[in-house]
Amino acid sequence: MIECALFGAGRIGKIHAGNVARESGAKLKYVIDPNEEAASALAAEHGATTATTERVFADKAIGAVMICSYTDTHADLILAAAAAGKQIFCEKPIDLAIDRARSCADAVARAGVTCMIGFQRRFDPTFSAIKTRIVAGEIGTPEMLIVTSRDPGAPPIPYIKSSGGIFKDMLIHDFDVFRWILEDEAETVHANASCLIDSAIADAGDVDSTAVTIRTKTGRLCQINTSRRAAYGYDQRFEVLGSAGMLQAGNHAPTQVTAYTKTAVARDLPMHFFLERYRAAYANEMAHFFAVLAGKEKVRTTIEDGLKALELAEAATTSWREGRIVQM
Amino acid sequence: MIECALFGAGRIGKIHAGNVARESGAKLKYVIDPNEEAASALAAEHGATTATTERVFADKAIGAVMICSYTDTHADLILAAAAAGKQIFCEKPIDLAIDRARSCADAVARAGVTCMIGFQRRFDPTFSAIKTRIVAGEIGTPEMLIVTSRDPGAPPIPYIKSSGGIFKDMLIHDFDVFRWILEDEAETVHANASCLIDSAIADAGDVDSTAVTIRTKTGRLCQINTSRRAAYGYDQRFEVLGSAGMLQAGNHAPTQVTAYTKTAVARDLPMHFFLERYRAAYANEMAHFFAVLAGKEKVRTTIEDGLKALELAEAATTSWREGRIVQM
Amino acid sequence: MIECALFGAGRIGKIHAGNVARESGAKLKYVIDPNEEAASALAAEHGATTATTERVFADKAIGAVMICSYTDTHADLILAAAAAGKQIFCEKPIDLAIDRARSCADAVARAGVTCMIGFQRRFDPTFSAIKTRIVAGEIGTPEMLIVTSRDPGAPPIPYIKSSGGIFKDMLIHDFDVFRWILEDEAETVHANASCLIDSAIADAGDVDSTAVTIRTKTGRLCQINTSRRAAYGYDQRFEVLGSAGMLQAGNHAPTQVTAYTKTAVARDLPMHFFLERYRAAYANEMAHFFAVLAGKEKVRTTIEDGLKALELAEAATTSWREGRIVQM
Amino acid sequence: MIECALFGAGRIGKIHAGNVARESGAKLKYVIDPNEEAASALAAEHGATTATTERVFADKAIGAVMICSYTDTHADLILAAAAAGKQIFCEKPIDLAIDRARSCADAVARAGVTCMIGFQRRFDPTFSAIKTRIVAGEIGTPEMLIVTSRDPGAPPIPYIKSSGGIFKDMLIHDFDVFRWILEDEAETVHANASCLIDSAIADAGDVDSTAVTIRTKTGRLCQINTSRRAAYGYDQRFEVLGSAGMLQAGNHAPTQVTAYTKTAVARDLPMHFFLERYRAAYANEMAHFFAVLAGKEKVRTTIEDGLKALELAEAATTSWREGRIVQM
Repeated sequence: MIECALFGAGRIGKIHAGNVARESGAKLKYVIDPNEEAASALAAEHGATTATTERVFADKAIGAVMICSYTDTHADLILAAAAAGKQIFCEKPIDLAIDRARSCADAVARAGVTCMIGFQRRFDPTFSAIKTRIVAGEIGTPEMLIVTSRDPGAPPIPYIKSSGGIFKDMLIHDFDVFRWILEDEAETVHANASCLIDSAIADAGDVDSTAVTIRTKTGRLCQINTSRRAAYGYDQRFEVLGSAGMLQAGNHAPTQVTAYTKTAVARDLPMHFFLERYRAAYANEMAHFFAVLAGKEKVRTTIEDGLKALELAEAATTSWREGRIVQM
Repeated sequence: MIECALFGAGRIGKIHAGNVARESGAKLKYVIDPNEEAASALAAEHGATTATTERVFADKAIGAVMICSYTDTHADLILAAAAAGKQIFCEKPIDLAIDRARSCADAVARAGVTCMIGFQRRFDPTFSAIKTRIVAGEIGTPEMLIVTSRDPGAPPIPYIKSSGGIFKDMLIHDFDVFRWILEDEAETVHANASCLIDSAIADAGDVDSTAVTIRTKTGRLCQINTSRRAAYGYDQRFEVLGSAGMLQAGNHAPTQVTAYTKTAVARDLPMHFFLERYRAAYANEMAHFFAVLAGKEKVRTTIEDGLKALELAEAATTSWREGRIVQM
Repeated sequence: MIECALFGAGRIGKIHAGNVARESGAKLKYVIDPNEEAASALAAEHGATTATTERVFADKAIGAVMICSYTDTHADLILAAAAAGKQIFCEKPIDLAIDRARSCADAVARAGVTCMIGFQRRFDPTFSAIKTRIVAGEIGTPEMLIVTSRDPGAPPIPYIKSSGGIFKDMLIHDFDVFRWILEDEAETVHANASCLIDSAIADAGDVDSTAVTIRTKTGRLCQINTSRRAAYGYDQRFEVLGSAGMLQAGNHAPTQVTAYTKTAVARDLPMHFFLERYRAAYANEMAHFFAVLAGKEKVRTTIEDGLKALELAEAATTSWREGRIVQM
Repeated sequence: MIECALFGAGRIGKIHAGNVARESGAKLKYVIDPNEEAASALAAEHGATTATTERVFADKAIGAVMICSYTDTHADLILAAAAAGKQIFCEKPIDLAIDRARSCADAVARAGVTCMIGFQRRFDPTFSAIKTRIVAGEIGTPEMLIVTSRDPGAPPIPYIKSSGGIFKDMLIHDFDVFRWILEDEAETVHANASCLIDSAIADAGDVDSTAVTIRTKTGRLCQINTSRRAAYGYDQRFEVLGSAGMLQAGNHAPTQVTAYTKTAVARDLPMHFFLERYRAAYANEMAHFFAVLAGKEKVRTTIEDGLKALELAEAATTSWREGRIVQM
């Protein structure tokens, strides 16, 4: 039985708490959040208690921590957890600053603990089926990857301001998908971007629409298009063209209803946002974390993966800001 | 907190036990099954114990029973549960004999307990969305209902022999869908049927392929086609034609992958069988049962519904055996 | 070069005239229609002239006639054409009276001419691909056929009155599809039907919604559902369940646009009605007729096929009127 | 009646000849091709004769010419046709050299003749429906355009060598789609590209896979991905994200058959290549040309459009060769 502490009682923290509760070999002991009400409520729901950060790391019984708190707390918590020898599950990004993220990776390596990064898309049934089928050779050699990643609506401006920018906040997942699906590294990154939705986003120094092109070391090509707003909901698709065919990941819908009326043949919109769309992915991800801790599986989203995705986000940011192609 | 006893530790019993475990207001206390090993394993998984039937009904603390055991035990258990004043959730059918099923309904009525029948399709996200949209008037007045219901493969012959025949075993769900969707009752039933898959099914006195037509009291038409074998898996669809349009319920697939190869554009087969396909329906159904017991909802699949579906199954059986249209 | 005469300058006559014009080995010489204006216009469009029926059959140069005139003229024209030794293409039905239709078939046989019936669905790209794939064994042995056949709207009441009823007017095509796809003959026919759309149709002695079940001599099952009105347009689908899989014929749409908006993911309605939906089928059908006359192909929709479909329509009418299952 | 001369009796010449034949106000008089056999056969099929280029331009009766010959003949023929006052339909590209293409545009302007460029995609039912719906405001303001354009297989190396490179040969259509759909002009062009299919293409100085990003003067973004080989056939899709939704153009398939077997739910591959896929577009395009000549419509794909697309192709070629973002 692994006793766990969860940092962050927000939306994603609740999801992870629920998934920890489903693990027979794990028990949620502490919930930590500066918002005491949120912490207490989530702790109560799972028979846990609230605690201070100090108490968590001082408690020898704690085997693992889930870091689902604000981005600016991730690095400190990783460093403290590594120092205390706790196993770590951490939401992306490691940190907005690459140097600091590297320090975290180093600390984790020195401590010899697991630090799994929450790139949940790798655990999504549709996405992971594509990975499996590529590996099985169904489409020959993958040559091009086209990723479409659009949110249903832009977050509030204060969120934008502290997000590190769209590339580190939103595309970091797409950069991880790129590395995971093509099993290749970037040679060049070109990011074009615009503020088309809300000028307040531009005023905050960010953009809301991007078009990224990555060329890999082996000459393969990846295009990523993103938007902070899709009127029709959360749009999460990609397609891989290989020498022998193509695999497409489509959106998931709440039901399989088709309606025929005087005007159209209509189906459901995609599931609204990440909490619904990636419900199964989050469950699979947490199950993987505990399987790793139990020695049954090898961690699939390492802190190195987190670092590499961050480097791509940094390069894309530079490419956009300086209007040039960035060599990796 | 409602303490529960679950009869039957088979496939469907396990599903229900898991869903009871998820209810905050319920606790599984007993699991009863002649197969002691199965009963013990399921009980252990949920912190329950095994018990005899006598002990269950003698235990005043038990508030509800889930009857997921063999069909021939359903009526006795309903009668005993009603006599003991327990709330009842019972898998279909009530009994293979209509008279005995009626006695159960009478006993339930006299006892004043709830007896919810496990017509889980009414709780499926796709199916229930269609019901909601019909009620909202999206397709005007429903006029015709076409139901396609095919299993991935025929059950073993011993199962066939004790099943009461395909109409009571398999189509009973489709008959309930008919009544629920059209909100109308049958005036005539015509069932044509054949044994096309395995002659051993004919030897067992049953058929494996059916084509049923129901005309309702208001002149609306329903066609149901079923087969014990669809090479491509579990096929569960229906469509409702109304004066202003049509709503179709399509199959659910495990992933949203589309594969383009030299030969075809291919998507996943439907989810294999009822345990996968109706996972959400089973969860919603059990949540409804406890919401009914808590007085928050009115029971949506009553023992009367079970009786009506059984009457349709009986009429269809007669129609097929005697080669005639049956007046209800 | 085969010189042709076309009877009937209505909607379907125009289609056939256009397709004859595309045949390099054929020439439209005469157009015959009591509506002189329509006859003249169509004749002019294709460099033909109008003529009387007598002149057509007296003209030795005429090799073939296309009978696209009112149903009540078909038999007389077939008999006259056969007597004159002309090759015949005739729209369905041969005649509303089976005896008279049989006389036509006999006359055609005696004359040794071809009489192809316009069951154009057999020549539709989607429908014929399914036939080809069944024959190739893709789904094993066909066991069940489900046909959905719905018009966008009911025809005027005067049309209904002279149509011979929905079974001879509308379902005759579905009956031919049944025979063609299953390559089997009916043993029993059961037709249930209602007037749900417009009571004036009932006043005219007809119905607008039908549910037909056919059992074949080898025990296979076919269900046909039809309606005179689908708010969303012309609905022409069927599916064949075989021992190794299923083949579905879907509707054709004008474009492949998908629109994602705030409310739905929407695609085009099906092509509106038979002239649009079966455009390719009509062209293929006429090409086949001339290929038959050129000795390159064997006629695929014979007058015997027309007779068999008519017998099924007659049986269905009886089944509906008398409320009984009809033995063939 | 406009008498026409058609240059080039190859695949696309045959298509255009057939479409000219369908025009009631046009007549094909001459077919010109250095391959005399091809010229004679095509001329014979349409009641035309072969001719020399000199004779065509000397024949006062000729009102229009269709230039479907090799790319390196286009400019000379445009200049000669303009000089002779003939109306011009010309396949893309005007010429591989921009200066020469500009000279052609100037000559056409001076002569006051129409010179329509064969950007047939604008006349495709699916593509043009999207344009119409954007203009109608269905998706608000268009913000991003994603174009997927893949051929079923690479052309022979000699073709590659004389093609002007993939950007001028293949993407020129996509560049026109970009301008047409977004109604905007490029500010920057970035083209990444690789040779992933056949190293002989690289040896010929070309690439076979490209990833292009265009930023428009108003800050909108367009991504184009192309490949010379899609194992599954001709892949021609695009999607437009707007402020209020998205419109997608999907592939067209030969039939609407869906096959369910033990392994998958499979649909047809896309129509194989441009002759099949754009059959309707070619017919609509030629009808438009004659409607323009008749003064009924305003030419929709002008020689200026041809020039602009060529400039984008040139910029993309430079971007790829020099590894930099090109300012327009």
